[in-house]
Amino acid sequence: MSEEVKPESVSLYPLGTGSRRPRSCGPLPQGAQVMSHTAAAHSASLVFICVHREHYGFLETIAPHLEGKVLVDVSNNLKKDMYPEANATYLQRLIPGAAVVKGLHTLSAWALQNGLLAGKQVYLCGNSGEAKQAVAAMATKLGLTVLDRGSLSAARELEDYPLRLFPEWRLPLRVAVGLTAFFFFYLLIRDVVYSYVERGKDTSFKIMVSLANKVFSIVSLIMLSLCYLPGIIAAILQLYRGTKYSQFPDWLNSWMLCRKQMGLVALGFAFLHAIYTLIIPIRYTAKRNLISLVLKENKTTPFFFDNTKAWGTDSFYALGILGFFLYVLLGITSLPSVGGSLSWREFSFIQSKLGHLTLFICTAHGYIYGWKKFLLPSTYKWYTPPGYMLSLIVPSVVLVLKVLLLLPCVDHTLTRIRQGWERTRSREEIVEGKVIKF
Amino acid sequence: MSEEVKPESVSLYPLGTGSRRPRSCGPLPQGAQVMSHTAAAHSASLVFICVHREHYGFLETIAPHLEGKVLVDVSNNLKKDMYPEANATYLQRLIPGAAVVKGLHTLSAWALQNGLLAGKQVYLCGNSGEAKQAVAAMATKLGLTVLDRGSLSAARELEDYPLRLFPEWRLPLRVAVGLTAFFFFYLLIRDVVYSYVERGKDTSFKIMVSLANKVFSIVSLIMLSLCYLPGIIAAILQLYRGTKYSQFPDWLNSWMLCRKQMGLVALGFAFLHAIYTLIIPIRYTAKRNLISLVLKENKTTPFFFDNTKAWGTDSFYALGILGFFLYVLLGITSLPSVGGSLSWREFSFIQSKLGHLTLFICTAHGYIYGWKKFLLPSTYKWYTPPGYMLSLIVPSVVLVLKVLLLLPCVDHTLTRIRQGWERTRSREEIVEGKVIKF
Amino acid sequence: MSEEVKPESVSLYPLGTGSRRPRSCGPLPQGAQVMSHTAAAHSASLVFICVHREHYGFLETIAPHLEGKVLVDVSNNLKKDMYPEANATYLQRLIPGAAVVKGLHTLSAWALQNGLLAGKQVYLCGNSGEAKQAVAAMATKLGLTVLDRGSLSAARELEDYPLRLFPEWRLPLRVAVGLTAFFFFYLLIRDVVYSYVERGKDTSFKIMVSLANKVFSIVSLIMLSLCYLPGIIAAILQLYRGTKYSQFPDWLNSWMLCRKQMGLVALGFAFLHAIYTLIIPIRYTAKRNLISLVLKENKTTPFFFDNTKAWGTDSFYALGILGFFLYVLLGITSLPSVGGSLSWREFSFIQSKLGHLTLFICTAHGYIYGWKKFLLPSTYKWYTPPGYMLSLIVPSVVLVLKVLLLLPCVDHTLTRIRQGWERTRSREEIVEGKVIKF
Repeated sequence: MSEEVKPESVSLYPLGTGSRRPRSCGPLPQGAQVMSHTAAAHSASLVFICVHREHYGFLETIAPHLEGKVLVDVSNNLKKDMYPEANATYLQRLIPGAAVVKGLHTLSAWALQNGLLAGKQVYLCGNSGEAKQAVAAMATKLGLTVLDRGSLSAARELEDYPLRLFPEWRLPLRVAVGLTAFFFFYLLIRDVVYSYVERGKDTSFKIMVSLANKVFSIVSLIMLSLCYLPGIIAAILQLYRGTKYSQFPDWLNSWMLCRKQMGLVALGFAFLHAIYTLIIPIRYTAKRNLISLVLKENKTTPFFFDNTKAWGTDSFYALGILGFFLYVLLGITSLPSVGGSLSWREFSFIQSKLGHLTLFICTAHGYIYGWKKFLLPSTYKWYTPPGYMLSLIVPSVVLVLKVLLLLPCVDHTLTRIRQGWERTRSREEIVEGKVIKF
Repeated sequence: MSEEVKPESVSLYPLGTGSRRPRSCGPLPQGAQVMSHTAAAHSASLVFICVHREHYGFLETIAPHLEGKVLVDVSNNLKKDMYPEANATYLQRLIPGAAVVKGLHTLSAWALQNGLLAGKQVYLCGNSGEAKQAVAAMATKLGLTVLDRGSLSAARELEDYPLRLFPEWRLPLRVAVGLTAFFFFYLLIRDVVYSYVERGKDTSFKIMVSLANKVFSIVSLIMLSLCYLPGIIAAILQLYRGTKYSQFPDWLNSWMLCRKQMGLVALGFAFLHAIYTLIIPIRYTAKRNLISLVLKENKTTPFFFDNTKAWGTDSFYALGILGFFLYVLLGITSLPSVGGSLSWREFSFIQSKLGHLTLFICTAHGYIYGWKKFLLPSTYKWYTPPGYMLSLIVPSVVLVLKVLLLLPCVDHTLTRIRQGWERTRSREEIVEGKVIKF
Repeated sequence: MSEEVKPESVSLYPLGTGSRRPRSCGPLPQGAQVMSHTAAAHSASLVFICVHREHYGFLETIAPHLEGKVLVDVSNNLKKDMYPEANATYLQRLIPGAAVVKGLHTLSAWALQNGLLAGKQVYLCGNSGEAKQAVAAMATKLGLTVLDRGSLSAARELEDYPLRLFPEWRLPLRVAVGLTAFFFFYLLIRDVVYSYVERGKDTSFKIMVSLANKVFSIVSLIMLSLCYLPGIIAAILQLYRGTKYSQFPDWLNSWMLCRKQMGLVALGFAFLHAIYTLIIPIRYTAKRNLISLVLKENKTTPFFFDNTKAWGTDSFYALGILGFFLYVLLGITSLPSVGGSLSWREFSFIQSKLGHLTLFICTAHGYIYGWKKFLLPSTYKWYTPPGYMLSLIVPSVVLVLKVLLLLPCVDHTLTRIRQGWERTRSREEIVEGKVIKF
């Protein structure tokens, strides 16, 4: 066991900084040296290029000094597709004698300096394996987790990464905004405009809480069912095609890929619905209603307690609470660190069994809300059905289809298909064998 | 710095797939080739065996082509203990000339294809270190975190992993179900049956909210105290034995191992209790009660505000809220990513000090609930004590024992024992020395 | 592909334990051997020193046997700065012929034995790269993530790590305690003492819920604005200095480093405020108030519903709920596993845009609370402004400054400065070039 100390392992920041103005540089970590570019390039084996792309030109002038070095391109662009080729590819073209590695551009210098990055994932790419290894070794020492994304042709993708703005959340958020807008205006007409036009009563104050609360609950339920619909469509498709070996259509694939986000947006709406509901009794309106109820009750003589109504409303609330509880549970298991520690069977148990149970309970919560009002003509204002009825359509369809898929004969066929069986294959071929090589 | 490009690092899926029917294969990633089995086996150094175990036989026919290759067994069984030996062990026996590595069987092909697996932990085992290294290198490139679990004898354990269904949650869930069932029937008899039999009043509507809420709070408090009881039993055992170097009995060990899950189940019940409580004033029952109170009040003349009662109920609620807040805090720190970033002292501060404080506050919340009712004979219906009294027994015992353990003389002895001191050792031997070698 | 099995990879615990009393040792994992110290030291290449520092002396007696071995110092101290030099440095001085590696001291033996440590981060340091590599390889096999912190001079820092007790939470918690204490006494005087002195009414019961709730909301809002104030001060400083390349003053830097903790403490207070608010209608006080309102209403004839008041209170609650919702969202994205999976742009979008929106909504919530009361002389008891007014000062200042910084001319200059432009530099020098070498 030798006592040799590798220079890189001595301290976290053994860096020297090459600058065009060696004396007027910004704050530097201890142990760093400011040198002229040429000196820096000469003495280092790993050179970090912290230059805006538009100034890469000047690097050509010191190209001979960069020969055989590892150049780490940490540049970022301000927009996607600003330039025809990736910055790192351009740099490699300018200095063909160096080994360019793209990466570490996703780190904030400030966070790095303050040791806030332990465990953060970073991506690297480059044509030279050795060069990538050198950069990876250094990054590992900084506590980063390095993922090799292959050759320099991946640089484009890597450079676009820090410019990403929730791509997988776009579809769910658009659906949410669309549904919210539709139901907001639908209920505005039914609840506010209708009573103003027909009865001359101004109930516009309802917009802030009552109406918002209805919209939140409706959108939440529909979006929850939209999490489980693509899985059911996929199962029907597999049953229809009789094989699992054909690709799903693109729209179905991208729908399936954002189920988690869809569910989390639904959870957000459920959370709002829960708090909006809990706030009800503090509201001025609720207090006034209670007082006017008491004043009315005071005139009619016998005080009456309706047992059935107590059962109905209590069941309604209990189902709502249980549904919300399971909802939150689903949300917690979709946290990366929790989901990552589950076995596949556990994950599928929670997301499929518990998920469908949640949908069932929340749908039942909606049905009890309707209860006796279903056939009351007075609820069909201007011949429109109330909002909660519309919200029950998709969940009901999803639940009915799910039950059909769970019928023993259907379930058996589906299980066989998912284990590799194909309807159109002859008997001998069923012995499925696949060998994948690298 | 050479420009050589290792073939594996070019792209994420440089795979060729061997199939019995090279032309009719399922969807393949770009760059993959479909070959006959023999061709695939011949040209690759890493061969993934994606075949059901019952068809491993046919691999014997191409055994010569697999000689010297790394075979990655990614097979999964449908049940535990389906076969006398692990699939990977069986494969190794069939093709002794190859190096079998078990692993990557916990990944969903769909998730892999869609890049959803970055950072996921995977386990490998195999008899050849080199073979494991080759597979690990490839897995690392896919963004996976690889853990080496040793020789092929671990294959059985690894194959059972994806079939795991919350083993560490079983004991806490059983305790929870048992307690819930007991207290549900106990309170059903006291609150519903009693009032029906003795007074002929139907109060069955209470089941959905009032009774459920009582059960949740009781089970939550008892389960929280069951988190801290094993630690106290362990301390007493260490004090009694005068050493920390003897193993705890099995029941205590398995109890201690599920304390976290026990606490999280307790938190779930506390969450339900909180929302069930907050929903109270919206309930039909609560409104009717309020109205009947007003009507009664209207007849009696002077309006009376009881300051002591206001203090009592407000303290009751405040303690409940603070207890719940600390409860949630404990829950958050038991998230893998949060707990993992705490130092040992921080973790023990939160789980022990804050945990006992939470238990104390929640127990006090329970005692205030009882308040003046403790000695009221009317609360002992059919000679049974009310549910909340039963729920206070275990927490009170835990808290009293904890206080005893914190007495300076006891605490001092316990600290010495935990630092390695043993009562039965002679003076000279106390210099404890242990050297562990690998 | 050889079949050789490296001894370390056979099983998780291939350890032999050297002890002064080989026969009376504590519980050992399967496969472990108990040997005398000399035998253990002789046969192993990796030796774990599980000895208290005060007994390191005896190791000198077996120093010849430890020559050339890797000694892993896993010792922990009971207090910071107990000894003039780090334990590992002391060990290295005692046995200069061995390669001492400090690390793994942060692991609980019990957790290790029960496999609870997968994925946990551990730090190593030592002067020999080879020795560290050997320890790292073993730790990796146990499922740990190893971070190399350099030479043995880092041992001190590593030994202090497990004794850390929330250093980054101290400032935020102190601010929280200070603000809470100040506003508690301020409101106690205004709400309780005032009404007792001036009107002789005992309203002390308000302390538990009403007063606490006011304090929580005030502290939460102020602390939220204190999260965003340092960023604004930093921007103003950069504008004033005309460069980003000069270090912030220390107080600003340490303030910026605890913004996350500041925000999470604020979220905790917001959570308490939310539940304290939701509990209001269950309170005895609220019920009595409602009843006295009904009794009064019963005498005055026409029942009156105030539309404007309904709008006002409902907007107040709706803003509060939305603010809390965004608050929780900010809290979730600051979980390590969630924040770590965001791109830089996503993270800054959430923490900056959504953060300022949250502050704006919560501040608006506070303003609506004031509403018509602003100019009412009766609210200025004993010439003091109500608490909510004081709580609005800092947030309002932060929001106004933020709006000023977003003015196109200011924003443009700031963006240029943050891209590296400096006001004092001459034109030619603006081509900023930096090359960092390792």
